[in-house]
Amino acid sequence: MELLKVSSQSKPKLVAGAIAAVVRTGESVEIQAIGAAAVNQAVKSIAVARGYVVPNGIDLVSYPAFSQLEVDGEEKTSIKFVVERRNPENS
Amino acid sequence: MELLKVSSQSKPKLVAGAIAAVVRTGESVEIQAIGAAAVNQAVKSIAVARGYVVPNGIDLVSYPAFSQLEVDGEEKTSIKFVVERRNPENS
Repeated sequence: MELLKVSSQSKPKLVAGAIAAVVRTGESVEIQAIGAAAVNQAVKSIAVARGYVVPNGIDLVSYPAFSQLEVDGEEKTSIKFVVERRNPENS
Repeated sequence: MELLKVSSQSKPKLVAGAIAAVVRTGESVEIQAIGAAAVNQAVKSIAVARGYVVPNGIDLVSYPAFSQLEVDGEEKTSIKFVVERRNPENS
């Protein structure tokens, strides 16, 4: 699965473009964010990406989960979003 | 649709309990958050709620979107999450 690391400095439109590109191929993408500001950018990116794929007749679903990461030897709790194409049967 | 307003002070476990209660009945719930700290609490709440409904054989999907709100006469951009039961056909 494609992994995108999002920080507080990430630009939602750019991240959204990357999400849309993966989801259009039918694959899932995992987005990793540590801290409130990064989580906020990740959520904005997913919201923007939904708009990007609407013309392709696609909607996106996201599944947030907690994930433990080691950053510089320190244990951190990140939020991991799995974003994938919404199955038409789900509508 | 049930509306939950989440702030930076909201406790994810409490919000998760409210989400789980609604989703178990088969209804959708809308979560509204303004600002990065509130969005972070909302995402944590959804992640915790997924754990709450797993024993019921349910998984949750969330759809983030932007939403314009007027707060004290000021236009604010909030994040709105629609959370609903994942349809088994989507797995």
